[in-house]
Amino acid sequence: MSHSGLLQQLIQGFCCLPGVGPKSAQRMAFHLLQRDKQGARYLAETLLDAVERMGHCSRCRTLTEKPLCSICEDRSRDHSQLCIVETPADVYAVDQATVFKGFFFVLHGHLSPLDGIGPEELGLQQLESLLVAGSIVELILATNTTVEGEATAHYIGEMARKRSIRTTRIAQGVPLGGELEYIDSGTMSHAFSGRKEI
Amino acid sequence: MSHSGLLQQLIQGFCCLPGVGPKSAQRMAFHLLQRDKQGARYLAETLLDAVERMGHCSRCRTLTEKPLCSICEDRSRDHSQLCIVETPADVYAVDQATVFKGFFFVLHGHLSPLDGIGPEELGLQQLESLLVAGSIVELILATNTTVEGEATAHYIGEMARKRSIRTTRIAQGVPLGGELEYIDSGTMSHAFSGRKEI
Repeated sequence: MSHSGLLQQLIQGFCCLPGVGPKSAQRMAFHLLQRDKQGARYLAETLLDAVERMGHCSRCRTLTEKPLCSICEDRSRDHSQLCIVETPADVYAVDQATVFKGFFFVLHGHLSPLDGIGPEELGLQQLESLLVAGSIVELILATNTTVEGEATAHYIGEMARKRSIRTTRIAQGVPLGGELEYIDSGTMSHAFSGRKEI
Repeated sequence: MSHSGLLQQLIQGFCCLPGVGPKSAQRMAFHLLQRDKQGARYLAETLLDAVERMGHCSRCRTLTEKPLCSICEDRSRDHSQLCIVETPADVYAVDQATVFKGFFFVLHGHLSPLDGIGPEELGLQQLESLLVAGSIVELILATNTTVEGEATAHYIGEMARKRSIRTTRIAQGVPLGGELEYIDSGTMSHAFSGRKEI
């Protein structure tokens, strides 16, 4: 016997979530149906609503249900700084952890010619027009510190250099609380060669 | 800044899932909205459907959208054996792993007087009427091997004994592949005292 038709479908539905296998999906289905029908209804309705209405901010391309996201709408922020990130989750990560009060631009990925992702897919034309507008003094490259992220940062850095805009890259090194014994050699070599006067 | 209103609501929605905190909920929300809108719609619609239509089997009380679950509907199964479990997930676990071809009865919990869960909440009257019907030869107690599960098994065992129905309890001992070094002392003592001639 397998599960009843509808239950099986629900378990399959949960399996599309990242990090959720059949076992967790089953647990989620049983939990909601037995203990939290109200939560289940709320989740389902919000999810449908979000899928329908969620789009991209017309300025920074992050996820939002409005034409402009709450950051781009905020007039009190600093127009002289623009931070480039790969995903909307990165916007949130930078905004939560830092004192950065400028604006963001979301690439939705990184340059990856083999997958057909070039400057156009990353919205670099739109970025170009932001750079042309002239209010940006510093461009902060906060793409991932992966090979692709580095290549993308380099490419965008070149764009900024042509317009003589100051470009910075987030620092790489040993993470806070990192025990040197367990740090990978790439990070270690970066941290060593990037050492600073104290 | 926090997330946009709708995104924040969606993240909250995912937080009602078992084992999902704000960080995983955020990951799920971003994943569905950016990479799997179709999966998101499927999940939301199936979940709404399940919340509306899913009820309990009128015979064994497991979760099903039909009046009788697929096990109780199956005429080829053995009417002489009835297996008592705590949850619908346990029905599935027993059915998947064993050769058991009898029927099930789901308690939806265990006796817990302090929480107001007595024989009535566990459907023991309904169980009684199944026992009275007379076709059951063996009652298999497969409640959890927790204190409450044991107490519940004992209580139901007494009900069966009054009607002279043979009652068995699933075996307790060292799990398969268990390394004795890491087994808790309660299990170890059970396994030792329950040793068998080979």
